[in-house]
Amino acid sequence: MRPVMARIVLKYGGTSVGTAARVRAVADLVAARCAAGDEVAVVVSAMGHATDHLVDLMAQVSERPPGREVDMLLASGEQVSIALVAAALEGLGVPARSMLGFQAGMVTAADHTRAAIARVETGRLEALLAEGIVPVVAGFQGITEDGEVTTLGRGGSDTTAVALAVALKADRCEICTDVDGVYTTDPRVVPEARLLPEVAYDEMLELASLGAKVLHPRSVELAARSNMPLVVRSSFGSHPGTIVRGVDQLEIRHPVTGVTVDLDQVRLVLRGLPDRPDIPPSLFMALAQAGRNVDVITMLVRTGPGGDQLDLGFTVASGDRKAAAEVATRWVASHQGATLEIDDSVAKVSIVGAGMVHHPGVAAGLFEALEQAAIPIRMIATSEIKVSCVVPRHLGLAAVQAAHRRFALHEVRQPRVLAR
Amino acid sequence: MRPVMARIVLKYGGTSVGTAARVRAVADLVAARCAAGDEVAVVVSAMGHATDHLVDLMAQVSERPPGREVDMLLASGEQVSIALVAAALEGLGVPARSMLGFQAGMVTAADHTRAAIARVETGRLEALLAEGIVPVVAGFQGITEDGEVTTLGRGGSDTTAVALAVALKADRCEICTDVDGVYTTDPRVVPEARLLPEVAYDEMLELASLGAKVLHPRSVELAARSNMPLVVRSSFGSHPGTIVRGVDQLEIRHPVTGVTVDLDQVRLVLRGLPDRPDIPPSLFMALAQAGRNVDVITMLVRTGPGGDQLDLGFTVASGDRKAAAEVATRWVASHQGATLEIDDSVAKVSIVGAGMVHHPGVAAGLFEALEQAAIPIRMIATSEIKVSCVVPRHLGLAAVQAAHRRFALHEVRQPRVLAR
Repeated sequence: MRPVMARIVLKYGGTSVGTAARVRAVADLVAARCAAGDEVAVVVSAMGHATDHLVDLMAQVSERPPGREVDMLLASGEQVSIALVAAALEGLGVPARSMLGFQAGMVTAADHTRAAIARVETGRLEALLAEGIVPVVAGFQGITEDGEVTTLGRGGSDTTAVALAVALKADRCEICTDVDGVYTTDPRVVPEARLLPEVAYDEMLELASLGAKVLHPRSVELAARSNMPLVVRSSFGSHPGTIVRGVDQLEIRHPVTGVTVDLDQVRLVLRGLPDRPDIPPSLFMALAQAGRNVDVITMLVRTGPGGDQLDLGFTVASGDRKAAAEVATRWVASHQGATLEIDDSVAKVSIVGAGMVHHPGVAAGLFEALEQAAIPIRMIATSEIKVSCVVPRHLGLAAVQAAHRRFALHEVRQPRVLAR
Repeated sequence: MRPVMARIVLKYGGTSVGTAARVRAVADLVAARCAAGDEVAVVVSAMGHATDHLVDLMAQVSERPPGREVDMLLASGEQVSIALVAAALEGLGVPARSMLGFQAGMVTAADHTRAAIARVETGRLEALLAEGIVPVVAGFQGITEDGEVTTLGRGGSDTTAVALAVALKADRCEICTDVDGVYTTDPRVVPEARLLPEVAYDEMLELASLGAKVLHPRSVELAARSNMPLVVRSSFGSHPGTIVRGVDQLEIRHPVTGVTVDLDQVRLVLRGLPDRPDIPPSLFMALAQAGRNVDVITMLVRTGPGGDQLDLGFTVASGDRKAAAEVATRWVASHQGATLEIDDSVAKVSIVGAGMVHHPGVAAGLFEALEQAAIPIRMIATSEIKVSCVVPRHLGLAAVQAAHRRFALHEVRQPRVLAR
């Protein structure tokens, strides 16, 4: 027996297996990894737009299809791609077996269309690996204790890959996609944007949920929980990609790692509410009950002659504008003297960096950069590793450029050991 | 609880669920059956040309894909249609659940791409039926004891439906397809062709395997073994269709029920072989090893001055012509004085009837009809319920017309109780 170099879970997304030719190309890559001595398990998504096609079919058949049947339908997409990839591998002389969710031991809760993974029973996969056979596992799907087919929701294949890597105690999980890795910001906005060799889980979470849609946050959280190194790389390019890992394993902790922008926000401000402690929770509960996801929230108390008053501002995605405005309008109507202001065209620009907490003045640097670029700031929100500014939408990209320049993100920094 | 009228397995083929609109139409029909008080289980095939599309995809990925992966791939087709049909039923207020092969307890042997059904574990389906829920079962697929996905081979969905009907002790199995039922012959060849209200299992077997491609022979055999009444009918038409049942349950036993033709045959004749008893078995074994399906076989011994000589004739499908000719050529070369004659354009015309055995002169009647129509007969083969004549291909359809006229198959005959 040849010594195993590393145990790796490789995940290929829908674009990477979008055509028969790409399926063959993926098989070539996997075969090369096996030839190099790595022990490999593969996770694949449904081909290209297969899932969208299935969703469209279901919409023509039923207005409100049961979640169980949606899962049954969607799970067929990955079934196609795993069979093709496994057959292509066998054609190259690499022993391989396609594995459905239930065969791969991906046991989930019964919450259809967004099932949580309960556990991974790796017996069958371990047996295949021990025989030198490559398991090709259907992403996105699982099985309940009762033998019902479930799906994990959008972004589910990344989560499958990470859960599998953790359960198989893999050395790392590689998410092979259609980008080279994670950039300091969108290269279409800032041409000098630089590919990051490494980012921390927390940074990745902020970057992903803020618009750099490379990895689903759920998969990053899962990886972070088990300290599973994640690599984001191009399926077909030669670039080594970006490694996502624990902040204490980073070679460099930057004050600012990247800049993101969300151009699709609406800002609502309620002014002149009474300063009562029940006001903020009940407003945001009402919004949550209307199914609206509130993003940035700011609150200020104004001292006035008739008692203290509360100003509450928040942003929502444009798609939630109507429902959020309805809730806010009802609220203003039931509180005398309160007013509602809606700004339909704002953008949220954020800087993210795990080292920010150790570097005072990072937030101030961002504000200054925006001020020098004549970009007015409408709202501010901060966290340990992130500073966000809400700005007029037409200045959103200019704000990204200003922030990228300010923190010199185009410059390659040499790794060094950080003082603890 | 409402009394159950009958327990029925309804099978809908790929054309019947070929579009979203047809899926909704099938759901309407099933809902109407439930409303009428029938207890219904549904079996569906993959949508339209879905299976062909998948086969094509696999061919682009692998020249000789493993059977296991072919099964994994193809089984996804039925998964799509069951989810859509079940969701459409639920949309109509009819409780329904899609069921994969493994969920429906369809346990098969491990012979991939043509798996035999080992048994049907009906526990889960019976539980659904008891709750008034319509199981919508994926045709064509099963699961091995080891949890491997299998398919039953072409025509497998009919077999699934019959196996399910038998296991569930249904009153009948209805195969809903794109024809009104079984005709005396192809109505495109003989405009007076008549729809048969009933045929015997044996007749159906001969009619199906001879070219009236309505029901897969395997499903008819399975139904015959358990005496399960089969109904062949149009999915969307109102015609009651053809009932297929045991010959002792037929109301009329016709000497001739139908006429079929296979226009795709090649005739090979080996003359002058030595008359040894090992010759026929070893020739046909050699053909079988080359994977050729021999159809009509005739053998004659000629007494000659240098000892008795054997003439062997047989037909194969045109697609097998090359391989069969190679085997035959090798044979002739190794037997001095033997010759090979190949006729590339023949057709096989057959009359089928369960009552034939009780009516002498049926075969003679066919020969006479062909002779009167100036159609030369090249080979003859007979069985209990069938007489086949091999004729020149360009006269094949004329032969069908002559036979149909001769046995007055266009005339509706009144049911009567047969003398036993």
